[in-house]
Amino acid sequence: MAKINKNYNKLQAGYLFSEITKRTKAFQTNNPGVEIMRLGIGNTTEALPPSIIKGLRIGVEKLAQASTYTGYTDEQGDKRLRQALSDRYKKRGISAGAAEIFISDGAKPDTANIQSIFDVKSTVAVQDPVYPVYVDSNIIAGKKEIYYMVCEEKNGFIPSPPGKKVDLIYLCSPNNPTGAVATKAQLKKFVDYALNFKSIIIFDAAYSEYIQDPKLPRSIYEIPGSSKCAIEINSFSKSAGFTGVRLGWTVVPIGLITETSGPGKVNELWNRRQTTMFNGASNIAQEGGLAALSLEGQRECKKIIEYYMDNAKVIKQGLKSLGIVVFGGMNAPYLWIKTPRSLSSWEFFDKLLSEAHVVGTPGSGFGPHGEGYFRFSAFGHKENVQKAVRNIKKNLKL
Amino acid sequence: MAKINKNYNKLQAGYLFSEITKRTKAFQTNNPGVEIMRLGIGNTTEALPPSIIKGLRIGVEKLAQASTYTGYTDEQGDKRLRQALSDRYKKRGISAGAAEIFISDGAKPDTANIQSIFDVKSTVAVQDPVYPVYVDSNIIAGKKEIYYMVCEEKNGFIPSPPGKKVDLIYLCSPNNPTGAVATKAQLKKFVDYALNFKSIIIFDAAYSEYIQDPKLPRSIYEIPGSSKCAIEINSFSKSAGFTGVRLGWTVVPIGLITETSGPGKVNELWNRRQTTMFNGASNIAQEGGLAALSLEGQRECKKIIEYYMDNAKVIKQGLKSLGIVVFGGMNAPYLWIKTPRSLSSWEFFDKLLSEAHVVGTPGSGFGPHGEGYFRFSAFGHKENVQKAVRNIKKNLKL
Repeated sequence: MAKINKNYNKLQAGYLFSEITKRTKAFQTNNPGVEIMRLGIGNTTEALPPSIIKGLRIGVEKLAQASTYTGYTDEQGDKRLRQALSDRYKKRGISAGAAEIFISDGAKPDTANIQSIFDVKSTVAVQDPVYPVYVDSNIIAGKKEIYYMVCEEKNGFIPSPPGKKVDLIYLCSPNNPTGAVATKAQLKKFVDYALNFKSIIIFDAAYSEYIQDPKLPRSIYEIPGSSKCAIEINSFSKSAGFTGVRLGWTVVPIGLITETSGPGKVNELWNRRQTTMFNGASNIAQEGGLAALSLEGQRECKKIIEYYMDNAKVIKQGLKSLGIVVFGGMNAPYLWIKTPRSLSSWEFFDKLLSEAHVVGTPGSGFGPHGEGYFRFSAFGHKENVQKAVRNIKKNLKL
Repeated sequence: MAKINKNYNKLQAGYLFSEITKRTKAFQTNNPGVEIMRLGIGNTTEALPPSIIKGLRIGVEKLAQASTYTGYTDEQGDKRLRQALSDRYKKRGISAGAAEIFISDGAKPDTANIQSIFDVKSTVAVQDPVYPVYVDSNIIAGKKEIYYMVCEEKNGFIPSPPGKKVDLIYLCSPNNPTGAVATKAQLKKFVDYALNFKSIIIFDAAYSEYIQDPKLPRSIYEIPGSSKCAIEINSFSKSAGFTGVRLGWTVVPIGLITETSGPGKVNELWNRRQTTMFNGASNIAQEGGLAALSLEGQRECKKIIEYYMDNAKVIKQGLKSLGIVVFGGMNAPYLWIKTPRSLSSWEFFDKLLSEAHVVGTPGSGFGPHGEGYFRFSAFGHKENVQKAVRNIKKNLKL
């Protein structure tokens, strides 16, 4: 008498991107031959740089010889890779030991699965608008109470800590979708809150390498006290073009404590979760990650990030020249647009598609406070981005 | 006031393999210079064959050029790979469409995560002894009732369906750890049971390619009616040496029904689970998987399987010559040994390690009915396996 998990019925019907695909396809069917340009999805488009390709090749060639072949290896991730990440944190003045770092197949699975180690009765705070995975994963697991922290123009899209006690707080900075980046002072408020209420912050730093302003924190661990209350999740997807290669990591400090557990326990639980329900990242991807963290790899990755950030500038300037209000895009690959003439997010989507043949992402798809906003992504080939912006400037009727 | 998920405390303390590592290390410390041989863990050891290496190289080189680079792709998996799997099922007389196949990073995550789409109140039946992931993943998720189906010598280690109604039934055939393979008649009993009670069978076929006897079913879908009641999980790990590359798949038939859902729904739920909490298998691994399914790839993989099965023969003959009772190893890479002189599984582990310097896996680690048994694995370099068997024959005091 098998029954389904009814929590799935509580999820917002249809994922944002499937509705976008549907409307785009309908437009294409009705307008054959019209070229559609995409400034929408956060998907990397540029080739992997030489040193990473070299690393991936090493990964493959090792598997071709019995003497270097590896099957299952260290379940927490290649020790060399964890050490290289630890060393990078160290250079930034952060102590995160190899035993505190867990290699995974990406930040999305980790942000989705991390809730497993916390009580099903946990209350959960998220930003609104928000990356949907935080909310959906908690609802699927049966968590009942989601507290939305409003991100709006008047707080610069960075909320204050919740006005009530919550157990888990998801923060994404640089933010998807708003492109806003929390300052150290803003993050300190959350760390103080978490230390006070023994809450756990789950800090999604997937876009940290897009930060240009050296004063802005690229890790929650730049805030004193955070290693007692914060888990940090990061990824090679956006920093090294690994969206399809699949590699990420999560830092679970030994010193983390909860109301019901002392030092070491949360780290141990995440280890248990991962060794039970995951089987390690691809050894090929891990060789690639190691190459990405080399000096040459870091230099090459930085150039690709600059390439995307140049796209962000092109989009920002183009839209501003039309009098459109644009946020983000300075320290993040996302631009957050206030829709002109108070159009709804989906009204602007349709207008942009039909007039300029450009596809973007309706802000309302990220939560109620995304309504009236629109997300552009800086990922894309420069020529395509330039063309899309030209088309918007020429054809969008404001 | 964050609290941990207390279900983790209900898991058997310490994973089987960490205890093995601990005792092995202790022996090494006390006996420096002694060479330890491993016939224990189910980890592949032989190099990937040329056609798969070629496929993986293609995967890497595609990422080196912007024109062939891919980031996120089809979330359900590369359509070509799903079609190739569908075609292989078709050759075997099974209808499994590309829309029913979900590519993943391995069978372990899928067997662990599949429970997410079913009611937390589901009752779960598993074989005893059993691959620990089925039980642990359900306990972590808060499922309360586990029904153990006894596998023992008198039923040939293949149980009958539960004597009471259960919602979910995990079956692994060829079995890890016992190496037993269910016949069509035996599987039919489970399918009849599931159709009768609207239960769902979760069929772990990760070792299917090790079946030598053409009469034995390599898929649950060889049993009529099964596409209404069975999910099948499989992997490239053991069939193509992908333990470190990470690639698997799950078949969720459109026609599957539960008590609370009609056709299509379970497929849709797994799609929702995977698109929310997973982000696709590595595109490099998927190119490798495609190569593994080519005619040449299949021929090469078969040779590697024969290599491991030759190891199984060597182990089986060696142990039998000592008068030890050995099951399995005919259609599976695992051999299931009745410990001599009624030793407990861990007593035999210690004896084998201290006298023959060979590490295996205590059967009791797989469940109460594994007590008094011991698992050997056929994975390993031929020379090492031969040496281990020679050492057992020479030094094990029976």
